[in-house]
This record gives sequence, C-alpha cells and structure tokens, in this order.
Amino acid sequence: MLKIRKVLIDSYPENMSFLFRGADGYGPEHFRALRKIEITHHNVSILATLAITDDATMVGPDEIGLGEQAFRRLGLAEGAVVSIAQATPPRSLEAVRRKITGDTLTANEITSIITDVAAYRYSPMEIGAFLVACASFMTTDETLALTRAMADVGNRLDWRAELVVDKHCVGGIPGNRTSMIVVPIVAAHGLIIPKTSSRAITSPSGTADTMEVLANVDLTLEQMQAVVIREKAVLAWGGRVNLSPADDVLISVERPLRIDTFEQMVASILSKKLSAGSTHLVIDIPVGPTAKVRTHREAIRLRKMFEFVAQKVGLTIEVVLTDGSQPVGNGIGPVLEARDVMAVLQNAANAPNDLRERSLFLAGRILEFDPALKGGAGYDLAVDLLTSGRAFDAMARLIEAQGPQTQPFGLGAFRHDVVANSPGKVASIDCHLIARIARLAGAPMDKGAGIDLLHKVGSTVQQGETLYRIYAQSQDGLDFARDLAVESSGYGITP
Amino acid sequence: MLKIRKVLIDSYPENMSFLFRGADGYGPEHFRALRKIEITHHNVSILATLAITDDATMVGPDEIGLGEQAFRRLGLAEGAVVSIAQATPPRSLEAVRRKITGDTLTANEITSIITDVAAYRYSPMEIGAFLVACASFMTTDETLALTRAMADVGNRLDWRAELVVDKHCVGGIPGNRTSMIVVPIVAAHGLIIPKTSSRAITSPSGTADTMEVLANVDLTLEQMQAVVIREKAVLAWGGRVNLSPADDVLISVERPLRIDTFEQMVASILSKKLSAGSTHLVIDIPVGPTAKVRTHREAIRLRKMFEFVAQKVGLTIEVVLTDGSQPVGNGIGPVLEARDVMAVLQNAANAPNDLRERSLFLAGRILEFDPALKGGAGYDLAVDLLTSGRAFDAMARLIEAQGPQTQPFGLGAFRHDVVANSPGKVASIDCHLIARIARLAGAPMDKGAGIDLLHKVGSTVQQGETLYRIYAQSQDGLDFARDLAVESSGYGITP
Repeated sequence: MLKIRKVLIDSYPENMSFLFRGADGYGPEHFRALRKIEITHHNVSILATLAITDDATMVGPDEIGLGEQAFRRLGLAEGAVVSIAQATPPRSLEAVRRKITGDTLTANEITSIITDVAAYRYSPMEIGAFLVACASFMTTDETLALTRAMADVGNRLDWRAELVVDKHCVGGIPGNRTSMIVVPIVAAHGLIIPKTSSRAITSPSGTADTMEVLANVDLTLEQMQAVVIREKAVLAWGGRVNLSPADDVLISVERPLRIDTFEQMVASILSKKLSAGSTHLVIDIPVGPTAKVRTHREAIRLRKMFEFVAQKVGLTIEVVLTDGSQPVGNGIGPVLEARDVMAVLQNAANAPNDLRERSLFLAGRILEFDPALKGGAGYDLAVDLLTSGRAFDAMARLIEAQGPQTQPFGLGAFRHDVVANSPGKVASIDCHLIARIARLAGAPMDKGAGIDLLHKVGSTVQQGETLYRIYAQSQDGLDFARDLAVESSGYGITP
Repeated sequence: MLKIRKVLIDSYPENMSFLFRGADGYGPEHFRALRKIEITHHNVSILATLAITDDATMVGPDEIGLGEQAFRRLGLAEGAVVSIAQATPPRSLEAVRRKITGDTLTANEITSIITDVAAYRYSPMEIGAFLVACASFMTTDETLALTRAMADVGNRLDWRAELVVDKHCVGGIPGNRTSMIVVPIVAAHGLIIPKTSSRAITSPSGTADTMEVLANVDLTLEQMQAVVIREKAVLAWGGRVNLSPADDVLISVERPLRIDTFEQMVASILSKKLSAGSTHLVIDIPVGPTAKVRTHREAIRLRKMFEFVAQKVGLTIEVVLTDGSQPVGNGIGPVLEARDVMAVLQNAANAPNDLRERSLFLAGRILEFDPALKGGAGYDLAVDLLTSGRAFDAMARLIEAQGPQTQPFGLGAFRHDVVANSPGKVASIDCHLIARIARLAGAPMDKGAGIDLLHKVGSTVQQGETLYRIYAQSQDGLDFARDLAVESSGYGITP
C-alpha cells in the first residue's frame, strides 16, 4: 500500500506515475518492464506509465507520485492509500492486435477501442500501434464505425436549430484563411456557424493562430456558446472545449507520426462536426502537386469516403475540390494572414483576389444550404454580404464578443527579400517549401514572422526582383529561413 | 539558451526532458505539440520527450531538466548552456512511413532505422509504429537486414575460439529450464557456452530468475567474461551487458504491445547470438496447442526462416522441434524450478524425467557441434556427463564463479491444493493458464511463489486428488491464483 503524492509534472495526454527506486516492498524495475501500472483505491483505478525516481524528496519510499493528469483523473486527495499492480492492458487491445494481423474489426470492437482511448487507458505507443494498423488497411464500414465511436464518446452540442452549418478544409495550403471570411459572411446572413479551429502544429499558421491576432480565441465551452447565441457564429480554438476527447488523443499521436490517411481524416473531421452539433457541412479539398491531396483521382476517393460516412451519420455534406497548386493570398504567418483577411472584409483595393474569390465560392455553397434561398443564388448573396460591408460588421461584432486582442502584434523587424535569379514567368510555387521557410522564420509562435508573397503563379518577374519577403522576430529565425530559401526559393520560373 | 539541470527520473529507455511552464522565452505548450525536442550544445545533441513542470524547484525558468537517461547521453555537466528546438524527426522515419504504406525496405534503410533506434532517437510511439508496420509484412531479406543491422550496432564479443556454442528456446512453455542443465553438461565437456538469459516479463520465470535462486546473475560484461574464461560457461542475466542495444529498445516496446512475430523473433535471437560471439547454435521450438508455436506447419516456417538468416550471417544452426503440449518438469516459479534443475543435476530419483530427457537431447545436439565427436555420439556423451556427476560439478563451479546466492529463498508459506473434480486420465494441461495462475500467485517477483504439478499428461487421478499445489508468499497472491484456478484449473481430464 502506497500513499499518493502529487508530482507537478504535466505529461499530456499520458498519465505518469513515479516510484522511488527503493520503494517499500516493490520492485520498480519489475513493474516497469510492462511500462504501465494500475493504481487502485477501492473501486477506482487508473492506468499510468511508470518512471522511477532516485530523488526521495520527490517521492518517498512509501509513496507513489502521480503526475498532474494522473492525479486529476484518479480524483483522490494527496495521502490517500492505493495499491499498485502491473497493469492489465485494456481488453480492447486484443482487437488492435487482430487489426495488426490484418483483420477487419466490428463496430463494437472499434467502439471499445475508442472508449478506452478517450478514457486515457492507452499509452501513446498503443495508440500508435492502432493508428499504424489502421493505416495499412481500413474498410469504409470501419471508418464509419470509427466516426460514430469518436462522436459518441464526447459531449455533443445542441444548438436547437434545424440548420447548423460549418466548413472544413483538409489543409495543406499556406495562407488559406478562408474561414475568417466565410464565417462572417454566413453569420451576416443569419445562419448558425460555430467554427472551431486548430492551432498550427506543422504549418506556419492555423485559423486559431491567425484569429488570435485580432481576438481572444481561447474560449471555454460556455463562453463559446454565449458568443454563438449572440452572434450566430464563433471563430475559436477547439483545443479547450474537449468536444472530441478521443480525437484529441489520437491526434496527439498522429501528428508526431505524421499519419495522415484519408480514413483518419474523414473520421476525425466528421466526428468533430457531429460533436459540434453541425447539420450541414462544406468540405474543401485543395488539389495540387504540393498539397495534401495531389491528384484528382485521390480527391475523388476522399470525396466519396466523406459522402459515404456523412450520409450514414446524418450529416448533409457538400464536398468541393479547389485549386491547391499554390499558396492562397499573399501573407503566410498569423499577422500577415490577418492583414489579408481584413483587407478582403474591408473590400480594400489591394486585397488578394484569390483569397476573396475562394471565400465567396465557399460561402456561396454554404448559403445554399438555406432552404429559403433560390437554388444557385448563394454566390451572389455572398458577394452582396461582403461588398455591402455586412460581413465586415459581423466580424467586428464577433471580435467584440470573443474579446478583442489586447496585445498588439506587429510584423517582425528582421526582414530579408528573396529575389528572382532570372527573368521570366512564375510557373509554380512549392506549398511545402514555402510553409517550411515561414516556420523556420518563427511562425506561428512568433506571430509577426512569416512570408509575404509579392508574386504568384502567372506573374512576370525581372531578374533581381523580389519574389517574397521573409519576416522574423529574431536574427536566428531570419537566418534559418534565409538559409533554406537560398537552397531553394520554392519558386519555379520559366523564361 | 537554457541551463542543464539533472532531474532524478529514470524513464528507460526514453530520454525525458522537463521545462518549467513559465520558462523564459519558450512556449512549452507549443514545443510539446510534437512531443519531442532537440537539445543542442555546440555539435552534440540529443532528442528527448518533453514534459512540462509546474514546480519551479524542480526546474527553474532559465533551466531545462534532463532525466537520468537524457543527462547521461548528452554527457554535459549541470549548468552547461544548451539551446532547444522542436525536434526534427530522425530521417529514417521516412522509411518507416513508407513501410507503413506497404513498401519493402532496403538493407540501408533498415540499417539507418536501427542505428537511430539504438541511439535512442526514436520515441516508444515511433518504435511501435515501426514494429507494427513490420508485423503486417516483412520479406526474408528484410528480416536478414534487420538481423545484421541489430548485430552491427552493438558490441560484439570475441572469445578467440573457433567453436562457441549456445542454445535458445523460443519460449512459451512453463517450467522449461533446460538451459540450467544443458549449460553445465556442455561446459563439463569443455565447449565454450556463454549463455545470457532474460528475466520473465510475462511468464512465471525466466532462466535468469531461476538461476538467481542459486547464484548472482547480475554480472557486468567484464565479470561475465571472467567467468567464461574460468569456467567455459556462464548463466547470466543479459539485461546489464547491453550487447544488443537496438534489440533491448525494440523489446521494451514489443513486450507491452505483445508483438511477437516470427520475423522479429528470428532477428532478435540471431542478432543477440552474433553479438555474444556464438558460432554454433541449437534453437528449440516447442510446438503445442497452447504454446507460442501452435502447429507443425508454423514451426516449419519458423525453422526455415531461422535457417535462411543464420546461413547468411554465418551462424551454424540446428533447429529442433520439441513437444510443447504441456509444462516441462514439475515446478513452475523460480524456487520450484531451481529444485527440479538441481534434482536432475544430482541424478535424484524424483527428478522430473521430461526435463532430464529434454535437456539431454538438447545437450547432445550441441555436443555434436564438436568436430572431435563421432557423429551421433552427442546424446550418449550428455548422459555420461550428467550421470557421472561432472555436469553437477560444473554447475557448482559456475555458481561459485558467479557468486553464490546469499539470500536464502524458501517456498511460499501460503498454499492451496487444486484437486480433480472427477476421476480419469489427464488429457491436457493448458500452458497459458498454468502460467497465468503461477504469475498471479506472485512468480517471478516472489521467488517462492508458483505451482508444483503433481500430475502430468497421461497420469490417472482419483476424484479429489491433488492435481497441483499453488505456493504464494502472501494471502492476496494465493487468493488471486486460487480464484483463477477455481474458474478453470487448466487440466483436461477424460473419464
């Protein structure tokens, strides 16, 4: 029997526990062989990864240290007496093992896996095993079951409305901040559009990062609901609201492993939208040689998978394939993207036209979900809502409702121009490379870091003319970005 | 720039690092998204998993805490100044990703993966991804490349002898402690047999656990070499000598995930034998309905895989299929097994005959590797070495050389007899179930815990007669084991 001691270590999403190497009557080395222990107090128990400490001031010989997650999830006071045992792996791991050997799983098996994942009973290693096994082969029925299971384990919002719309882009295109234009347009028309977004993990900015330049995005579920009730819309970070706990855990492993299969994408996106209470959804799939989806054929396969699952789970969905051949807009990085978005909303003369047109197209599709609208009238309505300034007003109210950003973010003071080595016409821009350069410059952590594209595909440039400007908030960031840009600018120029 | 601070946390095999939540100029949450950071000081760097601490006394705002592994591997003094960055994943992960999508890897790619694994550049999650991807499909050439790569990254012992023999059993049969009889027989003949063994992880005892009842098994590489030079043999725990660092890391993930494919088994066993400097090897594959290898057909496939790889890496190998239908010997658990082993070596009348015969058979095969021996004379020589007491003497010298056990281990005082519910003949004994009951009783951590089988397959029993006795060192252990035995005894009895 050991006494609980809280250890102020945050090892999200994993439960961690700490045993003193000379613990009374326990052989920490033996316990550790299976990496996980079960910590039990009467009828409550959690699984936790075990580390051994040699510091008796951290955990005494008659104590078990619990990291912050484990302590919270066990829910007992410090000093409570628990017993520990080698963890019995979750039963659903048997199904994972069968999946590894090539089996197809039933909906019940997938539900039990996802239930255990959401309850933090899987270690990252076990989650990785499940994801990799699924990556090698997954039927559409399994994808459907995964979507349902992920939506079922979390909370589900209910907006008490027949029509709750949303949009989602599968990503991969730098500067593609259409949500920040589409949401105010749609809200200005009066449809409910509660949009939660991610922060960038491997890209130079996520919608949440860019929106944060203008407003508070770190809202609780209650704050989010209040904003939606008032403004019909929200543009918040989805990380705090825990709508899809299983997906959050899966993503914490998918990201570092860069597992990005269509099946996982469909299940992740659609389950999240179900949890968010959406009924109608536009999915944007950019297709291009350096985008996430590279060919039309792949895009069709992904579209059909979205349609199949959406139909089965009762979501009305419209999947659109868009041009993913180059970055969207001019700015890449939070401050630069916010500048572009506001230019479009303000109908400024220098607003990037591709970002504007793309947003109008997507907004138009969403507006068509409104049964009161005449078929085909969506696009014109979107144009009207934008040019009349009503979308801008909706955005201004949204910023006010979420709380305007109090910290002023400026552009990075360290700058470098990347110029054309030869005259000609811009034939291609490598989305991947441009994203990497912007990240090296410091985006999204340094909000004022990034890239401003002065020329896009089709543009004619002179030798020595600036193709894009790198902004950084530190000399180091600028140097890293410049070094990669020197190696390859990402621009293809034909004479 | 942060200063290094050692944190007394042992998170083997993983490098762990700790950043204070309010660290100067760093956003720990952002870094953590990819779970791993790179810690650099001039031209040395390591990768480490990042946890966040809220305890400023553990790690200050201008410090980075390093767990014991990370601190040792970076090799700098406390207070040394380092910089941190989001880790660039090891390049070889690209090959892992290709393997996930179904590709076959080249020998170079496998070498680069194994090199990174051995250098602790992979997280458990990434190792899991590699193993699961390999579990779904692996060519024999990939298995060969994996074996070579694993042998190459570690040290390789050189015994300066043409003939260095060894044996290995693929496992799964409780009580199968033939190594402790085979090694002294072979050593008594004068062949070099440096046998390292594992401790039990999921079974009731490993050879190292049982040998430890008699002698010290926790030897350094130097101690092991000294014993072999003196006695031609050793029976040591392999965990300390770090002969096969990549295999140690892979196993630390295979075990909890219970990934146990033939390909991994072949690569793991043969690479370890290569590292240990063996030249000639007998592999024992027990085949039985509750063993690891369940059918003759599977056993043949495994045998061929062993033969293919062994031949390519220059190991002379003899693969034997043995009866794996029931436990071997009578005792299961360290003390009980040590009793059986010594009974055989002492030629005691009550020595379990199956353990004796099996050991003589395997020893005979190994002795046949001696070119001086007439073909077919191995078995008779083994019998002679055993019955003459020379094998016992060799064991006594080995115990002396390794250091006799100073702690006396007795049988557990808590006992329970499992009896036959009906009269008849013992038709089957479930290896899995018996192993689980013995583990629940406390084996191998409690050395005196385990099971003593009073009847084996073929034996006639009366109703109420004791089938086996459970020994435990605590009432809890006895209760757990008894509860499972009540549910199912593991014995099939036909009238």
